[in-house]
Order: sequence, then C-alpha cells, then structure tokens
Amino acid sequence: MRLEEVDTPALVIELDALERNLRRLNDAVAGQVRVRAHAKTHKCAEIARRQVAAGAVGVCCQKVSEAEVMVAGGIGDVLVSNEVVGAAKLARLADLARRARIGVCVDDARNVAELDAACAAAGTRLDVYVEIDVGARRCGVAPGKAAVALAREVAARANLRFAGLQAYHGAAQHLRAMAERRAAIELAAAAVRETRAQIEAADVPCPRVTGAGSGSFMFEIATGAFDEIQPGSYIFMDADYARNEWAAPLPRFEQALFVLATVMSRPVPERAVVDAGLKASSVDSGLPLLWQRPGLTCVRVSDEHGVIEIAPGAAAPALGEKLLLVPGHCDPTVNLYERYVCVRGGRVEALWPIEARGALV
Amino acid sequence: MRLEEVDTPALVIELDALERNLRRLNDAVAGQVRVRAHAKTHKCAEIARRQVAAGAVGVCCQKVSEAEVMVAGGIGDVLVSNEVVGAAKLARLADLARRARIGVCVDDARNVAELDAACAAAGTRLDVYVEIDVGARRCGVAPGKAAVALAREVAARANLRFAGLQAYHGAAQHLRAMAERRAAIELAAAAVRETRAQIEAADVPCPRVTGAGSGSFMFEIATGAFDEIQPGSYIFMDADYARNEWAAPLPRFEQALFVLATVMSRPVPERAVVDAGLKASSVDSGLPLLWQRPGLTCVRVSDEHGVIEIAPGAAAPALGEKLLLVPGHCDPTVNLYERYVCVRGGRVEALWPIEARGALV
Repeated sequence: MRLEEVDTPALVIELDALERNLRRLNDAVAGQVRVRAHAKTHKCAEIARRQVAAGAVGVCCQKVSEAEVMVAGGIGDVLVSNEVVGAAKLARLADLARRARIGVCVDDARNVAELDAACAAAGTRLDVYVEIDVGARRCGVAPGKAAVALAREVAARANLRFAGLQAYHGAAQHLRAMAERRAAIELAAAAVRETRAQIEAADVPCPRVTGAGSGSFMFEIATGAFDEIQPGSYIFMDADYARNEWAAPLPRFEQALFVLATVMSRPVPERAVVDAGLKASSVDSGLPLLWQRPGLTCVRVSDEHGVIEIAPGAAAPALGEKLLLVPGHCDPTVNLYERYVCVRGGRVEALWPIEARGALV
Repeated sequence: MRLEEVDTPALVIELDALERNLRRLNDAVAGQVRVRAHAKTHKCAEIARRQVAAGAVGVCCQKVSEAEVMVAGGIGDVLVSNEVVGAAKLARLADLARRARIGVCVDDARNVAELDAACAAAGTRLDVYVEIDVGARRCGVAPGKAAVALAREVAARANLRFAGLQAYHGAAQHLRAMAERRAAIELAAAAVRETRAQIEAADVPCPRVTGAGSGSFMFEIATGAFDEIQPGSYIFMDADYARNEWAAPLPRFEQALFVLATVMSRPVPERAVVDAGLKASSVDSGLPLLWQRPGLTCVRVSDEHGVIEIAPGAAAPALGEKLLLVPGHCDPTVNLYERYVCVRGGRVEALWPIEARGALV
C-alpha cells in the first residue's frame, strides 16, 4: 500500500530516517558511555529491540506498566527512571525482576524500605539509583548530604543493589541556545561529581551515574561525570526539538515521525481544515508544523480539527489531499495511537504495535 | 473497593454528580428543543445510553469510528457532526446506516456527490446537514447563498435526505462572560434564520437546525432559531469550563470527572510531585486543578509528572497520598484512558469501558 492510501489520521514512521537516527546516536557516542534509550518516547518493543541491536544496553521507562511491556518484548535490562510508590506497583516491579535486570529510582527513605520489603517478598533484587535534583525541580533529593544518606539506606538493604545516581536535567533539554544547555549540564555535572565523591568517601561504592536527554547528551558526555545516557526523542524528533539550536557536538537527527492527515474542508480559499486535531497530535509543546509545504501553517486546533492557513501564492491543498504534520511533542502524540505505520520510499513496509500506549500505572 | 485503593493514575466519575448533570440539562431544556448529546466527550456507550434514557434523541460524534462504537452500543440515532471525506470512510458511514439512523455534515458539493454514491452502493440513505460557519472559522460554508446552493445539491440527490443546518459555534463556548457568549450566539442565530429563510424560499424544506454546546445552549434555545442542541461537556465539566462565568439561564453543572493521582515524591516541603502528567490529563486548555485541596496548585507538568506547589500553611499531602485532579479539558483527557472508574459515596460501583478511545479514523 502506498502512503497516500493509508486512512487518516495515522501515525507514520519514515523508516530510513529512523534507522539513520539510531546509527547517528551510536556513532556520536562512540562508546564513551553506555546508551540506555528511553522507551517512554516510542512505547514499542520493536523499536526497543532495534535500539538494543544498535548498541543500547537496554531501555528506560517511566512506569512499571511500560517496563512490563518491554520485558515481555524481550528487553533484558530495564530501568524505571522514576520513583515508584504504592504496594501494588512495588510488588509488580519486584516480580518483574524475576525475568530481567530491573532498576528503579528513589528519593525517599521510607520508599527504600518498601522496595526492600517488596523484593524480599518476591525473592528478587533490584538496582536502585538515588535520584538527585540537578536543576529540574521535580523529583530527587538535593545533591550532597541528602543523597549520601539515601545511598547508605539503599546499600544497607539486603534485597537492593545501590546502583548509583539518576541525574536527569529535564528542564535543560529545551533551553534553546547550545550555550545555555551546555551551561546547565555543566552545573548538573558539578553536583554529580561532588555527590559521587561524598558517597564514595562514606565507603559506599557508586557504580554508575545515568541521565541526559536528546537535547543535551553530548554535553553530559563531555563533562566526564556520566556513565550512561537516556535519550528518547532522538529517534523521532518533533517541532519543539526543531526549535532548539542544534550543532556539533550534537549529531543532526532527522524528523522521522509524522501524523498523516486528510484535508476534510476547504471552506474558503485561504483555509484548509485537516482531520487531525489535538486528539491526533499533542499540542502541549506547540502546534504541529506542516512538512515540506511552504506557506501552509497550522494556526489552531480543536479536538478533531486542525485549521491551516494558506499564504498567498502557496500551493493550496485540495479537499481530500493528504498532508504530513510534524507533531509539537513526540512522546504524548505517540501515546494517542495503537500502531505505527512504517513507510519506506512512500510504501507501507510494516505496522508496529504501540504496546505501551496508555500504560499509565 | 474504596476509591483510595484504586491504583493510579485513574479516570474517575462521581456517579451522583454525573446523574445530577444529566437531569439538570433536561430540566433546563424542558422540551423546548431536542437534545442530541455529544459523545465525543465521553466515547462510552454506557453513558450514551444514559443520555438517551434521560431524554436525548441520540448522540453526535465527530468520527465515523466513534459512530460505529455508538451504533454497536445500541444508540439508534447518530449524527456525525462533522464532514467525512475519503472513499473508505464514506463507505463505512453509508454501511452504518443499515443499522441506525445516521446523519452527517457537508460543506462541499463534490463531497455531496461522493456521499450520494456511497449510499447508492450501500443501498442506504443518510440525513445530510449543510454546515454553515457561524463564527468558529473552521469548517462550514458561509451562511446565505452558498448554503442554499449546497442544500439544493443535497436535496437533488436520490440517496440523501436534506435534514437541515449544522450551526455550531465552537469558538463561543469559552468566551468567559455570559454577555459575550450570548452576543456571539445571537449573531449565529441571525445567520441561521436568514439562511433557513433563503433555503425555504428556494423551495427546499429545511427540517432542522442543530448546534450549540455546553457553554451556550440556553442562548441558542432563547433565540428560537435552533431545533436541537449538541452539548457534550455538561456531563463532566472541566477546569476550562469552570473559568467561564456561569449563571441563569444556564443550569449549574457539577464537576463529575477526575484524575486520581498518587503523590510519588515529596522532595522539599513546598513541593509534591504526582504520578499524573500530560499523558494522564490533557493540558491543551490549561493545567489541572487540585480538587478540594486549598493551597495546593499544579504549577507545571511533564509527560508523567505533575508538580504541585504547597502554599505556606496548607495541609501538605504525604508521600503515597492520593489526590483528585480536575482536568483542564475533559474530552482529550478521556481519550487517554481505557475505562472509567465509577464511584459513589467513596466506593467503586462500576468500571465503564471507553470503547471509542483513540477512535480517530
């Protein structure tokens, strides 16, 4: 089937671009650190397996339910790069460690005790990373003393392995200028180095520091303070990442994810309406862009409509014509679909299920 | 099971509030017009059946796939209050008319011809409404002459019934002041009256005008220009509707939809982080609100986190505590979940499947 024959809205992967993105990441990293790709972006075991085949040690997830999907899909090393709270989720996480190497983050001593108890009940052990807040002001204990205390708590538990530090600076990923992102990551790295030194001075070995995202990972690598990176969006990119300044040392990634939409209304010459609104392309980080259609601009969306302004002189799309949109934000857009329509050279080559779509719990 | 035992994030309906909202709509309308509830809000056959039991003539949908779910769920009268474009969708729509009364909107003559052909092929007839743009600047032909021409096109087709006008003013629903919404709807009604008169002057009977939403429907009724209303959000409400001025003649609707979230991190005294981010509560119309927790404010979200600021002196939530969030926008939030957890008096009474979740095509 040709791409134009696919009914819409549909979530489309350009396979050549995806494959080049996979290679470019590993070429840029060049073995300096471990790559643990973030599966919260794609939620798809097929893509996770390709990331591992390209050199990733495994994946990270944000939810236990995502980790369950990844383990079921054959991924042997999964880090839940997030805190997990509540007896039901802890029991599932501990149970999952029967089937794969599983890690998790902590920022609370009571949670450490509950994790240990869950592992004792399941007869398993988890890798536990102490999350430190390196600037995102979200989860994580403060760098330094608080992190040392928590690392000791973890290390003292029979059913937990203290695996190191989680130090992800989410807020830095979309600082637009390269220099701003580099500066934010250098501050994060200073906090990491100091914390790791204090932990090791307390006679607790700190095997690994993990963190970084698609917008910053080469800066983390340059600091020498990180052992592992967690990029997710690099495989797809989106309109928000495209607004970042992007230059060496970051490799150039290509847009590989699109929403295919149909023009469903041409009420006046200067306006087209497509059948993809905010239930088809998440707008939390801005409106979608039109792909390779100069003069066409998505100016607003409602639940099921995208309103496109046609500039004077632009090639105007006809009723029924199909257009490719670049989502504002790839991760929550993926979460709206059941499957990817994978295309190469304009032909559908595969459908990949998004098994962890809606995996919230 | 008690609400506090439900694992999170979960989409919760307060059944008492939902049932009162159902009654309040029909009490306010008092038989002056037909109620056709909008199922794009809830995407759930169980709720649609309750709307019909409360007096609605049927439902409307925005997508053929939603209409298929509603017909499969026993709804006998479904209007796709939207244009449908493309041979595959038109065939499905025409086919659906074997099993229920099905309506659709048009704003293009070629689309009318294709609809007619699809019905001829299926051996069915559709109710066809000409959509006019009454101020939303989205789909729809201009009121007046263009609408008359299109109504004649529809009326001339052997397999289509010209059913009247679709005149929904989406942009008016969230004008904050009652007076602004009333003024916008009075302009819409003037366009409706003039168009209907011109169509009937052309000897084409115009049986019905349908439109209106939860933020404006009593204004449409007051104009006398509408025969049917299409409110959707009234059953649930949301944070964005709560920002509207709300007074008679609109009945007071209650918040009936919530996202149950767990505090997963308490990194500093003034901050709590919940496990519900923008994949659990759509932020297209603003951040979620905390329900009945004065001093707690959701200040930002990321994919899987909601960051809550705790004002000095506020009752601070503990790690593991569950909180109810009021979504910014009900429709796209519902579209993130597989089921509703229906609660009465703090106990789970039912789980209702959201059969049309992700029904995009």
